[in-house]
Amino acid sequence: MKRFQWGMIGGGKGAFIGGAHRVAAKIANSFELVGGVFDIDFERAKEFAAQENIDLKRVYPDIDSFIRGELSLPATDRITVVTIVTPNYLHYDHAKKLLRNGFHVICEKPVTLTSAEALELKELVEKNKLVFALTHTYTGYPMVREMKRRIEAGDIGSLQRVDAQYLQGWINPIIHGGEAKLAVWRLDPKVAGISSCMGDIGVHAFNMIEYATGLKVKKVLAVLNALKPENPLDLDGNVLLGFDENLTGVIRSSQIATGEENNLQISVYGTTGGFHWEQENPNVLKMFHEGAPYEIITPGYGYLTPFAQESHVLPPGHPEGIYEAFGNLYKGAAKAIRGEETVPGQFPGIDDGVRGMLFIESAVKSNTEGNVWVSL
Amino acid sequence: MKRFQWGMIGGGKGAFIGGAHRVAAKIANSFELVGGVFDIDFERAKEFAAQENIDLKRVYPDIDSFIRGELSLPATDRITVVTIVTPNYLHYDHAKKLLRNGFHVICEKPVTLTSAEALELKELVEKNKLVFALTHTYTGYPMVREMKRRIEAGDIGSLQRVDAQYLQGWINPIIHGGEAKLAVWRLDPKVAGISSCMGDIGVHAFNMIEYATGLKVKKVLAVLNALKPENPLDLDGNVLLGFDENLTGVIRSSQIATGEENNLQISVYGTTGGFHWEQENPNVLKMFHEGAPYEIITPGYGYLTPFAQESHVLPPGHPEGIYEAFGNLYKGAAKAIRGEETVPGQFPGIDDGVRGMLFIESAVKSNTEGNVWVSL
Amino acid sequence: MKRFQWGMIGGGKGAFIGGAHRVAAKIANSFELVGGVFDIDFERAKEFAAQENIDLKRVYPDIDSFIRGELSLPATDRITVVTIVTPNYLHYDHAKKLLRNGFHVICEKPVTLTSAEALELKELVEKNKLVFALTHTYTGYPMVREMKRRIEAGDIGSLQRVDAQYLQGWINPIIHGGEAKLAVWRLDPKVAGISSCMGDIGVHAFNMIEYATGLKVKKVLAVLNALKPENPLDLDGNVLLGFDENLTGVIRSSQIATGEENNLQISVYGTTGGFHWEQENPNVLKMFHEGAPYEIITPGYGYLTPFAQESHVLPPGHPEGIYEAFGNLYKGAAKAIRGEETVPGQFPGIDDGVRGMLFIESAVKSNTEGNVWVSL
Amino acid sequence: MKRFQWGMIGGGKGAFIGGAHRVAAKIANSFELVGGVFDIDFERAKEFAAQENIDLKRVYPDIDSFIRGELSLPATDRITVVTIVTPNYLHYDHAKKLLRNGFHVICEKPVTLTSAEALELKELVEKNKLVFALTHTYTGYPMVREMKRRIEAGDIGSLQRVDAQYLQGWINPIIHGGEAKLAVWRLDPKVAGISSCMGDIGVHAFNMIEYATGLKVKKVLAVLNALKPENPLDLDGNVLLGFDENLTGVIRSSQIATGEENNLQISVYGTTGGFHWEQENPNVLKMFHEGAPYEIITPGYGYLTPFAQESHVLPPGHPEGIYEAFGNLYKGAAKAIRGEETVPGQFPGIDDGVRGMLFIESAVKSNTEGNVWVSL
Repeated sequence: MKRFQWGMIGGGKGAFIGGAHRVAAKIANSFELVGGVFDIDFERAKEFAAQENIDLKRVYPDIDSFIRGELSLPATDRITVVTIVTPNYLHYDHAKKLLRNGFHVICEKPVTLTSAEALELKELVEKNKLVFALTHTYTGYPMVREMKRRIEAGDIGSLQRVDAQYLQGWINPIIHGGEAKLAVWRLDPKVAGISSCMGDIGVHAFNMIEYATGLKVKKVLAVLNALKPENPLDLDGNVLLGFDENLTGVIRSSQIATGEENNLQISVYGTTGGFHWEQENPNVLKMFHEGAPYEIITPGYGYLTPFAQESHVLPPGHPEGIYEAFGNLYKGAAKAIRGEETVPGQFPGIDDGVRGMLFIESAVKSNTEGNVWVSL
Repeated sequence: MKRFQWGMIGGGKGAFIGGAHRVAAKIANSFELVGGVFDIDFERAKEFAAQENIDLKRVYPDIDSFIRGELSLPATDRITVVTIVTPNYLHYDHAKKLLRNGFHVICEKPVTLTSAEALELKELVEKNKLVFALTHTYTGYPMVREMKRRIEAGDIGSLQRVDAQYLQGWINPIIHGGEAKLAVWRLDPKVAGISSCMGDIGVHAFNMIEYATGLKVKKVLAVLNALKPENPLDLDGNVLLGFDENLTGVIRSSQIATGEENNLQISVYGTTGGFHWEQENPNVLKMFHEGAPYEIITPGYGYLTPFAQESHVLPPGHPEGIYEAFGNLYKGAAKAIRGEETVPGQFPGIDDGVRGMLFIESAVKSNTEGNVWVSL
Repeated sequence: MKRFQWGMIGGGKGAFIGGAHRVAAKIANSFELVGGVFDIDFERAKEFAAQENIDLKRVYPDIDSFIRGELSLPATDRITVVTIVTPNYLHYDHAKKLLRNGFHVICEKPVTLTSAEALELKELVEKNKLVFALTHTYTGYPMVREMKRRIEAGDIGSLQRVDAQYLQGWINPIIHGGEAKLAVWRLDPKVAGISSCMGDIGVHAFNMIEYATGLKVKKVLAVLNALKPENPLDLDGNVLLGFDENLTGVIRSSQIATGEENNLQISVYGTTGGFHWEQENPNVLKMFHEGAPYEIITPGYGYLTPFAQESHVLPPGHPEGIYEAFGNLYKGAAKAIRGEETVPGQFPGIDDGVRGMLFIESAVKSNTEGNVWVSL
Repeated sequence: MKRFQWGMIGGGKGAFIGGAHRVAAKIANSFELVGGVFDIDFERAKEFAAQENIDLKRVYPDIDSFIRGELSLPATDRITVVTIVTPNYLHYDHAKKLLRNGFHVICEKPVTLTSAEALELKELVEKNKLVFALTHTYTGYPMVREMKRRIEAGDIGSLQRVDAQYLQGWINPIIHGGEAKLAVWRLDPKVAGISSCMGDIGVHAFNMIEYATGLKVKKVLAVLNALKPENPLDLDGNVLLGFDENLTGVIRSSQIATGEENNLQISVYGTTGGFHWEQENPNVLKMFHEGAPYEIITPGYGYLTPFAQESHVLPPGHPEGIYEAFGNLYKGAAKAIRGEETVPGQFPGIDDGVRGMLFIESAVKSNTEGNVWVSL
């Protein structure tokens, strides 16, 4: 099976998320890393390339030389798909240039700093008929996909309540410890955008809700907390959700929930049943039934939906983890790039990026304007 | 040890909550049930009394004859403490009459239908120097008490985030099943008051937050859901909480979270640690620490706070349950009635009742007025 | 409903297990404590009686005066059922005297020090047509009873594997800490019998297996561990089980599993499904199914077997605990004493006592003789 | 960083374990699959190679041609390390030939069919100074490694009890379902060796015990169950363990524990603490302490031992799974092949293979001879 020539912008030495993308790409078995702009420090970029056995000729100092260089190669020898794992504020510029020049893009979230930028990218993606995958990794877990398909099939009836949380504690020691905060780029609005907590993790919870339920959030009402007056960005907050349907929803998110690691959870309740899923133990899906005991659904069985089955390789009880979820997104993107048929939910795309930016902007606006409803 | 002559208003045949109070009173070992108004149907009341070996002379048809009858007895032979387990709308009248006539009162929540009524009772309690215990049962669990004491002691630093949920699903089949809804008195505003979900269970989550943290909620912003237009009361909702301190809080509550049983949970995060507790597995208290693994704290150990130790009798690993938590409230009330010293948090009282009514009223008002902040 | 005049031998001040019996009896609502031999120290016995509002005339210094005294009363004013909660070595003598004189008996386990003694009691019970209840408390949990009934009904097919454990750590600090070991009567063979770990807790695991599966263990092969040469009794061990059926079984038990509290568990696997239950979270029953997700069964539902339904009073999600399990045995004994119909498994009796003693003796013999199979 | 030219014997199309090795090798980032004997069907082997972009010249029909072909290449262009993932009965022959010809070997377990064969391989490994890694995958989990290091450091004192289980149910439907059993090679002694349950999974539990505790099992006493007389191999069993130290140990293992997936667990108790770990939720390590609450240890923290830290890449709460554990073994093997310093426990080797075979042989012998102790 042909592997794509694959490039990366960012993600060189010491970037854990870059490493995660590389493992995901390997698991997907369709990508060969052959070049990129791995670091703003060109020497470090070359060191990284050497370590990864990448031809130094295809290590570029910046995005423009990358595009120039690759386009100068014959079409068959050229990088065709590029992953962007730079700090948030660079996503837009990099993605725009890549899309304009015909590269497929796999991009870390949040897709841009504003929804306007995201909409611009959307236009480019559609005009140039390119694949754009946004790595909302958690949608790659097999049990999330099982939940999505079962909700679509009406297995829990009409939805009545949606609850999601994303709790972390890692900023707690930084915010209290007197560390140089600018060093933490997520707390710097110029780099991270208008929100830390909602922009970095709340948006994952938002995406998980829209992904799992198939519903669209119409409006939000947010209370955000920056903890200290000198801190420009939110570190914590609760966001009420409004839908067309007669149901309530809420997202709770924090980066100062001391001791929490990466505690993303979703609960969905319908007229005939419900679901509960936790990211930290991702191979367990709790399914509630009206009038019967709840079930624990796990991966690897023939009775699961095809989508969940194809999202887990090993037999039951062999815990695949976050890299494999990530790999499922890369597998989906690869199918799309090859022009194969994909199924709904195969990987998040530019539309999810636009939705996410609208969520972040609306939540910040709601908070700024005194906790009022703001439409997405 | 002297046992109090004890009476009940309500709680006769077929009333599960009445039975729970009797077990709690027995566990507390200080109450002897000798009379009461057990049922609006006097015949049934007498049947119940016979079954419980209660002297039929002390079975009364209504509250007024109860008071008259007991007061006609010599002071030493008289019921001194009375438990009220009637439907919500009767609490106020019954409690007022009992307090006016010198009886100590143990009352189911919500204490009344309005905060004005609760304030009236508060005045009576204070004027007549009587004990008034409100059975927010969950505050009787040893691990809740351990959490409370540790937060008081500063073990998790200053609070940053408070999260509570109370999810049930039992109204789901009723609301969808075409059952005669009036038969469900909790859905009838005349009987239940202005709120079903917040009035019945949200108020427990509210009380748990104020109990565990020692903080007072200053204002709320609520979105409530009655699910169907013909249903006058909320069955589900989310309530954002405002405090003086710089922290966020939220209560999520539902009676239509299909498949959920009685899922009360609280999470509290401070600058140096946090707690997580779940009512359905009540002997487990998760304690987070900044920079160290989290601990699982369980009852029965000498290293626990005295309050938690006295709230659990058996050795570690012998699961005491909700009756024992309930019994702890009765034990606390008995100490207070005997004039013994009690510790803070020994049992919820009329102040908790007032706070609860303010919460319910404010939440409903916030929802009615378009999801705005309403001060308590 | 008539309450039995009820007596206790042992279980006075400071005896936690005595207190547990009293709470259980209260929950059962059919027993009134009116006399007994509460303590070997008669003064302490009287103090206890005063505290419990018991007529001092019915506080006796020893078993013989107890029997004499009660028999001197008119039959209708007499204690009819007696609970024995003395140290193990006294059970036999006390039970024998009580049974010979026509008292129903509720007895702590192990029933006696030898199977010969247990068989003698069995003869007496049968001859005198008395009720004898042995408090293997864990059989009173509703989810254990649900498991039993479902196995009986063939819901998991023919059994293939049975696994039980009972792990505690409480003797660990004693055995290593240089405490006066004789003070711990369980380590003294004269008081505790020939086994500590198997006699005290292994026998519970054994009883749980026979109770839940309905099978009889035919032979055992044991390896026991006393940890230190100077310690006469086992503190830990593993016992292989032989059955008529083609299945394997094992009991693992320890009092030196450091950090374990009261960790009794059972797993049973059949041809079409299986069960897993844990005492420390007793309201959760895991049911495995061949070819389908496993279910979590909890109490309080109408779809449960009648036996499980009658063994749990409150609605789902209100955790009843070990006292309530205990109370279920007392309720069962009360039914039997009243001559009402009981169902199989309502309470463990003298046959369970005989079986338990055979288990303990066989396990010790197997260990002494070099880990060979010994028939029960 | 130089990647090794890597070959595989077995593991082509449709072999899930072969795929797992390839993912592990990719995660280890030091292996490039360039050739092998992928299938006994040479056409299928070539199809597989084409799919993996492997030069067809290096696809060989059998082990001998593989060795001949690779040795004919210049040393620097040659495969240097080979993974064996053939059915059990072929491991010995393949490993012997590879080791004799100077190839490093990574081998699936059980290493051979007999301990004599394993000892032969050991001699070859030592004589030729080659790396031999045996993929007892579960030793690659970071929390297993943390447990190992803490036990080594004396963090739980002297060991008193060791308990391990490995429960699966996958053979249950086969054994009862009338499927052609010979198709299941694990049930065919010619292919699988003298044991199914102990040979396939019991040996993992055995290895886990020796790995985590650092102790050597001296003798075993086994009861095995083949369920049906016509079935030549054990499907279930319990194995008592004897050590030099004064401690008890037991391995429980089953392939007919209906509904169990891949439930490997280990519990170790010492004088001052204990550990409990479960493979199906591998990022949670429970640590017991005498006289203090137990802790939940999870990966990704700076306070863990260096070995656990280097065995987990992502921040806390990002669940790495079995592929990553597998990858840790490949990373360890790569270090050893490069001649870098490795730490104890970096990967299981031929000594573990010999120990495993001794365990399997001794367990089967103990069972055959009537459940007597057999020395390893």
